[in-house]
This record gives sequence, structure tokens and C-alpha cells, in this order.
Amino acid sequence: MQDNRKGKAEIISIGDELLIGQVVNTNASWMAEMISESGIHLHKITTIGDDPAQLHQAIDEALKQAQFVLLTGGLGPTADDVTKPSLCTYFNTKLVFHEPTLRHIEALFKRRSFPISDRNKQQAWLPEACTPIPNSNGTAPGMWFRKDDGVLVSMPGVPFEMRQMFEFEVMPRMKALFKEMFYQRKTIMTSGVGESFLADRINEWENALPDFIKLAYLPQPGIVRLRISGRHRDQKILQQAIASETQKLIALIPELIFGYDDKLLEEVVGELLRDKNASVSTAESCSGGYIAHLITGIAGSSAYFKGSIVAYDNKVKTSILGVSEQDLNSEGAVSRRVVEQMATGARKQLDTTYALATSGVAGPDGGSPEKPVGTVWIALAGPDLLISERFHFGEHRGRTIRRSALAALEMLRKVLVKK
Amino acid sequence: MQDNRKGKAEIISIGDELLIGQVVNTNASWMAEMISESGIHLHKITTIGDDPAQLHQAIDEALKQAQFVLLTGGLGPTADDVTKPSLCTYFNTKLVFHEPTLRHIEALFKRRSFPISDRNKQQAWLPEACTPIPNSNGTAPGMWFRKDDGVLVSMPGVPFEMRQMFEFEVMPRMKALFKEMFYQRKTIMTSGVGESFLADRINEWENALPDFIKLAYLPQPGIVRLRISGRHRDQKILQQAIASETQKLIALIPELIFGYDDKLLEEVVGELLRDKNASVSTAESCSGGYIAHLITGIAGSSAYFKGSIVAYDNKVKTSILGVSEQDLNSEGAVSRRVVEQMATGARKQLDTTYALATSGVAGPDGGSPEKPVGTVWIALAGPDLLISERFHFGEHRGRTIRRSALAALEMLRKVLVKK
Repeated sequence: MQDNRKGKAEIISIGDELLIGQVVNTNASWMAEMISESGIHLHKITTIGDDPAQLHQAIDEALKQAQFVLLTGGLGPTADDVTKPSLCTYFNTKLVFHEPTLRHIEALFKRRSFPISDRNKQQAWLPEACTPIPNSNGTAPGMWFRKDDGVLVSMPGVPFEMRQMFEFEVMPRMKALFKEMFYQRKTIMTSGVGESFLADRINEWENALPDFIKLAYLPQPGIVRLRISGRHRDQKILQQAIASETQKLIALIPELIFGYDDKLLEEVVGELLRDKNASVSTAESCSGGYIAHLITGIAGSSAYFKGSIVAYDNKVKTSILGVSEQDLNSEGAVSRRVVEQMATGARKQLDTTYALATSGVAGPDGGSPEKPVGTVWIALAGPDLLISERFHFGEHRGRTIRRSALAALEMLRKVLVKK
Repeated sequence: MQDNRKGKAEIISIGDELLIGQVVNTNASWMAEMISESGIHLHKITTIGDDPAQLHQAIDEALKQAQFVLLTGGLGPTADDVTKPSLCTYFNTKLVFHEPTLRHIEALFKRRSFPISDRNKQQAWLPEACTPIPNSNGTAPGMWFRKDDGVLVSMPGVPFEMRQMFEFEVMPRMKALFKEMFYQRKTIMTSGVGESFLADRINEWENALPDFIKLAYLPQPGIVRLRISGRHRDQKILQQAIASETQKLIALIPELIFGYDDKLLEEVVGELLRDKNASVSTAESCSGGYIAHLITGIAGSSAYFKGSIVAYDNKVKTSILGVSEQDLNSEGAVSRRVVEQMATGARKQLDTTYALATSGVAGPDGGSPEKPVGTVWIALAGPDLLISERFHFGEHRGRTIRRSALAALEMLRKVLVKK
């Protein structure tokens, strides 16, 4: 193998649906993360249509550049697939019947009590030159081809199937073929301020990073992740550098950090509640149940989350949460008074240690000069505790909903860490 | 220009963060959709790192293949950016100061009451050879370069900024340069059954489609979108073919279709409620507020959505929703009796025409042989109406939450369309 291919990977994502939009290529980013953790260098992702000529060319180019070429897509049971015939042509081989695959497909359908169709049985025909890779979550097996010292792996495009196969079947085989550079990273999760603001705070430190250490800013609505990563032949040097640079960074922006290593804010809050044997509920107006959704997305959240009152209508604010009708009329729903009463009401009704409440103008309608679209009041009630704050989250409805939920969780986290 | 480049586009997404994972390339899929609607053929998406040599090569290759080369990323205010210097080298030009851009940046910061930093002011330096493109949502302008008859456009990577710029500035200029083939499509939204099942139902019709019409299966958890699309020089022939094939498809699977053209299920349900002057509330256990979140994601939903009780804890089911404690003990929370009482209770407490309720085992814990992880009861209460159904959504927590919410909304939709 040419030396420059060694340790490099390329992803080729196949599918017209990726080129006409709306199917987002989450497969590529998920694989990218696993690949980078292994120390293998992913240097390119190419997305092409269901077109044999384009596929042939893309495979050919990729195998010249990279040791590992990873294909996803084009293996489903429906008729828009082209991958298997194209691979037969490229590797100069033919389809043969693979008995174990048929048995696997039959077992899967039996478990789901679905009738098996001819279309599904056809998936047991595989190129003779490949090593089939089991698909524990679906019918289409993966295919592992060798060419000179390079490897081409074809996997299904359904994320649920691909992920299982990639993590437990493909990645271990790739790692066995590649060992050389060590890779390590640390992700610092920040919330509340934007990328430029952060950059100004940590600029000097960033410029003084050693050559083999890189920093990336990974912004999301309401959150910026700072990723310190490095590659080195000496694992010890790498570990020490990552650890010491992380400490320096933490010392620069302690109040902005809510967690590490892609841990979600709702996960951090959940662990704090569990540690302190406390519980939480929510009273949501503008966030519309999204805080509850974030909290309940975490497995085991029933240990500390009791429930939520989504009080979209003002009547629900008065009838269930006990908000004063007079205050609603005089101050409006988006006000300190109302949001504090919502929090206090939820804490009492749902019988929890803490309660979070939101009330705001998500838009696009409902804004006024005093309370423009994006204005959100957030409150937290707890034992001997009632705090509230006004925010401005801009004019985009979805972002305002998301940022409201994150700001509420962050308000609770800050109180919990001080306890 | 070589004829084979005409009407073709390529996207180049730049950023190390895309190659180490977790930042998902939503920009590319969003642009892909707009491009395909214009009749321009997107034939490739390439993702590369923040590496000048790789960028140079990618641009060079793309401009040989496509009339329009669209770059995103690498224009933010932080230090990991390489795009601008690379473009200067490639187009043999230098950075010059662009006064209107500075004024725009200053105005933006003033509006947000943020102090302006030198880092942001630097963004007003632009390659002399480009036409700057206004960025109404951010500080980094886009850049439009001509080379022979080809076009290269560089845009920021922040989705919020890129989308505005692409839709209102870039796409109109691209369309002005390209007019030839007509493109049209129709998307049929189905729910409740998988891709293979659908394929078997519509197989014969699919095989008889005219050459210039294509069908794509676009699956998501709980939903499969069927996209009929075509390209033709004669707009009338294309329109008639799409319309008649759509009618044939609808006739084959009428009960599986909930809407068209990527309309969300929660949007369809919202319109039906509005039309019928009806309202809805939810009582959510396993779906944890996700139905409320989907409904309130739609602007104007306050017209028909009053609120939700997220009853994660059984005490909330009894105290607020009025579920019988005896039934909870004898039947368990995941049962027809309990979910029906939840729906009835929410309808009464929140005073709505309809109420949806969910109770299930989202997992990973809490399963039993009679009620394995993924078992979900869903109920709908309405005027003289109480229906409930048991589902099995598999072992993945996030999917079970999502599929529960979709199945609940679909239950309501089916009732509303018959009214």
C-alpha cells in the first residue's frame, strides 16, 4: 500500500434522497465521531446519487486515497437501490446465495410476526467476493471487500442498522488493521454566550496551544462545545497535554461550563438531582413541553422527574397552577409575577423539590413594543427559593423554544451545584 | 463552458467539526432541497476539513464538473477558519477593506447591544475578485466568484445565516444563470407501516412509471415519505404526469396517507382542529411532553392547543387527572383502563374538545414479560368518543417516545377527517 493511504478513511454516502434534500446525512457524522476516536483520520465525506457510473468513479478515487472506504446506503429492500450490482461489477464478481443470511432474515420476521416477502428473501443474494457482515437490526447484511491492502465496506443506510453494524462489527476489524497514532479529545460544554465572546475570552490560551493539539468551536442554539483534540505517537505525552490544556481552559471560563464530553445539560441536571435526592417538575407556557421532553429523554429520569403542566392557555395557568387572574390581567402572561406563580404552583401541585416555569412570546405573532417576540420569563421555585429572570432569545420560534428550555435547565443546575 | 457542466451543482462543506462527528451537515441537505426544486441537478456533496490544500483541490475538481460550486463553512469569527485566505490564493486576488460590510456589522452589534470586537471588524476584509453577498443574520458576508462560465459561492456555515443568504441572495442569482429543464415533485406522507410493506403494495405501479418520473422512499421513525419527482423540457407534460401518477398512488394506499409535500403530521392535525373549531390537550406519561412539544412547534397552535399534563409520576395521574388508584394498582399504569382515564381526565381538566393520552414502557428499564419495553397504550377522548389501542414500538427509548407521539397524533387525525 502507498504510505499516504495508511490510516486514512473516506465515507461515501449513496442515495438520491440525500441529493434532493431533507434526508439529513446523520450517518456520516455519527461514523465520523467513532472513526476520529479510533485515531484513524477521516479526510473526506462524499455524497452521490443512486447512479452506477458515479458510484464506480467515487469508489475508484477513494480507494486511491484511503485505506478504508466506507459506503452507506443503497441496500434497502426497495427498488431504488443500485449498490449491490455496482459492487459486483467493480470487484468483478457475481451474486451467490448466502444461506445464513436467509435464516437471519426469516428469524427477524418471525420475531416481529410479519410475513416475509420475496423482496426480503432476495437480500440473501450477496457478491461472492465479499465477507458478509451480520446486521442484527435489519435484513440487509453488510459486505467487506479487500482490494490490494485497502478495504471497502458496504453498509445499509438505515441509521439504526448501520450504527449497530459499524460499532460492533466494522470498527473492531478496522482497528485490528490499524494501530499507530493515538488520538484523544476532551469536550467542554458551555452555555449562555456565543462563539465570538468565548473566542475573545480564551484567545491567548488558544494561540499558545502545542502544535499537536487543536481547538474546535462547535456551536448549537444556546450551547457552544469547545473540543480540545490531539494526535501523537506517544500516548503519555498526548494524555498529559490534553489534561493540562483542559485545566487551563476551565480556569479561564469556569462560570460558563456546565459539563464535559458531550454530556447533555438535562443529563447533568438529572445527575445533580439524583445526588441530592431531589425532584423536579415544570410549568411550561412558551416552551410547550420541551423541558419535560428533554428531561424524559434521559433513561431513568422517572427517579427525579414527576411531571409537568403545559399551561398554554391562560385558563390552565389559573385553574391548575393557581396563578392569580388579577395578575394575569394587569401584568400579562409574560411577566415576572405570573411566571413565579407558575413555578410555585407546579411545585405544590406536583409535589417536587424544585419547579421550573417559562412564559414568553415564541412568535411569530403576539409581540408588542414592551414585550417583543423572543421575550421570555423563566422562574425557579425551590425550598426557601424563588428566582426569576427575563431573557431575549430573538425572533425564531424554534430557537426561542430551545433556548428557553436550556436557560431554565441551566438556572436549576447553577442552584444545584451550590447546594 | 463545456456542455456537461451546465445545470450541475456541487456542494463543498468545509470544517474539521464535520469530520470528527456530531456536527451534522444539515446545511447540505437543506440546500439540496432548494437546488433540486429549481431544476438544477446537484450531483455531489463533498465534505472536507479546514485544510487549504484539500480545499484547493476540491474547488478545482468541482469547477471542472459543475456550473455552480457552493461552499459553506470556514467563515466564522474564530481562529479555526481557512476559507478566505484559500480563496484569495485560488482566485489569485488579495483582501481589501469593504466599507458597507463594516457598517452592516456595526449596525448588527448595535441592535443586539453587544460590544463590537476587532475580531468582528476583521470580517469586513474581503477578496478583491469577489462580489460580496449581504448576510442579514450575521457578520460574515458571502462571496460570489466567477471563473470562465462557472460560479463559486462561499457562504457562512451557521445554518441560520446560510439559509437566509442562500434562499434570498444566492438562489435567485443562480436561477437567472440557469433556465432549461423543468423539475417538479410531489411528496406523499405515510405513517404506520415500513418501507418493504409499502413497496409490496405499490410495486406494480412503480415499475410502470414513465422514464422521466422517479420514486424515492424516504423513511423516518414512524413515517415513510414517498417522493414522486421528474424532469422534463416540456412543463405541461411533466405536470400532467406527476398529477396522474400521484392520483394512481393515492388510490393504492388511501388509508396510509396523512398528508402531502412534507407537511408535518402535527401541522395537518392543527389545520383539521382549526377547521372544525375544536381544541386538544394531552396527558402524557411515556411520551413525556413530546406530543405537546410537537404541537406547540407549529406557529399559531395556541388557537387549538390548551395544554398538557405530563403525568410521569403515578401520583400526578391520580391527583390531577383523576385516574382511579385502584385501577392503577390492579391494572398497572400501562393499561387500557389507566390510559383511557388519563385522556378523559385531561379533556375535563383542560376543557378541550379532544384529549390524547399515552402510557407505556419507554425503557431501558421497567419491562416485564406481559409488558415488554416498547409497549405503549394510547387513548383519545372526545365528544361521545373514547378509543384506545396498544402498540409495540421496539426497544429504543428515543424511537418509542417519537413513535408514541406520532401514533397519538395519527389517531386524532383519523377521527378528525371522518367528522
